[in-house]
Amino acid sequence: MNKPTVAVVGLGLIGGSLARALTRAGYGVIGVDRDSVRRRAVRAGAVAGTTGTVEAAAGVDVLVLAAPPEANLRLLRRLARVARPGLVITDVGSVKRPIVQEAARLGLRGFVGGHPMAGTEGAGFLASSPDLFLGRPWVVTPAGDPAAVRRVRGLVRAVGARPVELEAAVHDRAVAFLSHLPQVVAWALAAAARGDAEAGRWRSLAGPGFHDMTRLARSPRRLWREILAQNDAAVSRALGAFIRELRRAPPGPGSRMTNEQGRRRAKPHSLRREVMTR
Amino acid sequence: MNKPTVAVVGLGLIGGSLARALTRAGYGVIGVDRDSVRRRAVRAGAVAGTTGTVEAAAGVDVLVLAAPPEANLRLLRRLARVARPGLVITDVGSVKRPIVQEAARLGLRGFVGGHPMAGTEGAGFLASSPDLFLGRPWVVTPAGDPAAVRRVRGLVRAVGARPVELEAAVHDRAVAFLSHLPQVVAWALAAAARGDAEAGRWRSLAGPGFHDMTRLARSPRRLWREILAQNDAAVSRALGAFIRELRRAPPGPGSRMTNEQGRRRAKPHSLRREVMTR
Repeated sequence: MNKPTVAVVGLGLIGGSLARALTRAGYGVIGVDRDSVRRRAVRAGAVAGTTGTVEAAAGVDVLVLAAPPEANLRLLRRLARVARPGLVITDVGSVKRPIVQEAARLGLRGFVGGHPMAGTEGAGFLASSPDLFLGRPWVVTPAGDPAAVRRVRGLVRAVGARPVELEAAVHDRAVAFLSHLPQVVAWALAAAARGDAEAGRWRSLAGPGFHDMTRLARSPRRLWREILAQNDAAVSRALGAFIRELRRAPPGPGSRMTNEQGRRRAKPHSLRREVMTR
Repeated sequence: MNKPTVAVVGLGLIGGSLARALTRAGYGVIGVDRDSVRRRAVRAGAVAGTTGTVEAAAGVDVLVLAAPPEANLRLLRRLARVARPGLVITDVGSVKRPIVQEAARLGLRGFVGGHPMAGTEGAGFLASSPDLFLGRPWVVTPAGDPAAVRRVRGLVRAVGARPVELEAAVHDRAVAFLSHLPQVVAWALAAAARGDAEAGRWRSLAGPGFHDMTRLARSPRRLWREILAQNDAAVSRALGAFIRELRRAPPGPGSRMTNEQGRRRAKPHSLRREVMTR
């Protein structure tokens, strides 16, 4: 079977990395983005060619929507007007329910939701890398057309990732805890430290733990606001569960920790026992 | 000036690393811990000798308390009964107010609070490394005896760290945000994900962001419960500030994010403008 031709719409961190990885794997890749990014992608050898609109790119075998989530929904509606039967469309967005539902509403049986579980806090084509997906899971949602799913799974494997088939709602609930909540937490942790007079002033004392836990706070906010808005209900539930766990953790009257400490105090600490009683 | 002799009481991650680093720097180091750890430290060449009690080690020039925080307080009270004038005592605990206050109550003018801002999620002598402190800040609190502070600063520099003089209360407030809150957050994030049926089941989807943010959840719980209990008030305030920031971050009616989204929606997204209107 010949390799399908692929259009990648949006050559940012994910789309740029996908274009680079597919080109390296021998696929003919068309890039769609604004002029300056298209020129950069051509110079980098990430794409075989470019075009300016999603309609002009719809002649390929597989079209990948890699713009921000709200833009992907609008691009999908435009595609529905020009897509020939058999066009496979997939996306790389972090929330699957809204776009899967929109594709169903538009009757796009060749739409397969996708989400590579890979990324960095970087953004844009300059942050892209053909190695981004190596060994990573890549969620693929079921579609009306099983052949479309097979095509997308093939692309996923071609860039070194591991396809994981998952219903959109299950994906959205799991990533609310595993990806979206951590993003919100990183922002809040950085903001809380910045907002305290002494912690802000002595920020240089922070160790690798703090840096690891606030690294995501540098992720692009506008993109993340769209992601969080699209997964609002699941993120709110995850946030609620997280705050319940938080309130359990620190010491305080009646907290789980205080009770455990009470139990622990009955037993001497091992070092204390060895060093102190002689 | 001859190098002072040093006793390190508690040869865990921090004490073990300190013993190794001081020995490498040419100091004569006596280790105090339970038998099995002392044997291990001797075999590793981390110490010149060992002894079983803090009283037997009190003949050195500088004694470093590197046991868990509650044990350090009890060791300090025992030391107060045997310490000769001129004995410099310091500690490496994560909370400074309780031990600084206890030293003042005991009239130990040679006590200098210390806190190396270094660590890993590991624990115990086997996790120790002589390089742990290289380039890291090491908080030193003021003491009754300025010569004691100079001695401790000298040791700090000898292991490659950078002394930062800070009042105990300021230290405790800053680390509540920069170290203790992140610890509590890591536990809660890991527990929330584990507690959700789908997130728990699909945990393998988690990327490096989630792993970085829950790495600290592997830190020793018993030790951390003592640290959090000793800094209860400051950690509770930091937690409160953090939860206020959290509630601001996600989308929801009246939230800051929703308002910013509203404003943003008035302007077309740049990619959308370029790709979609042609």
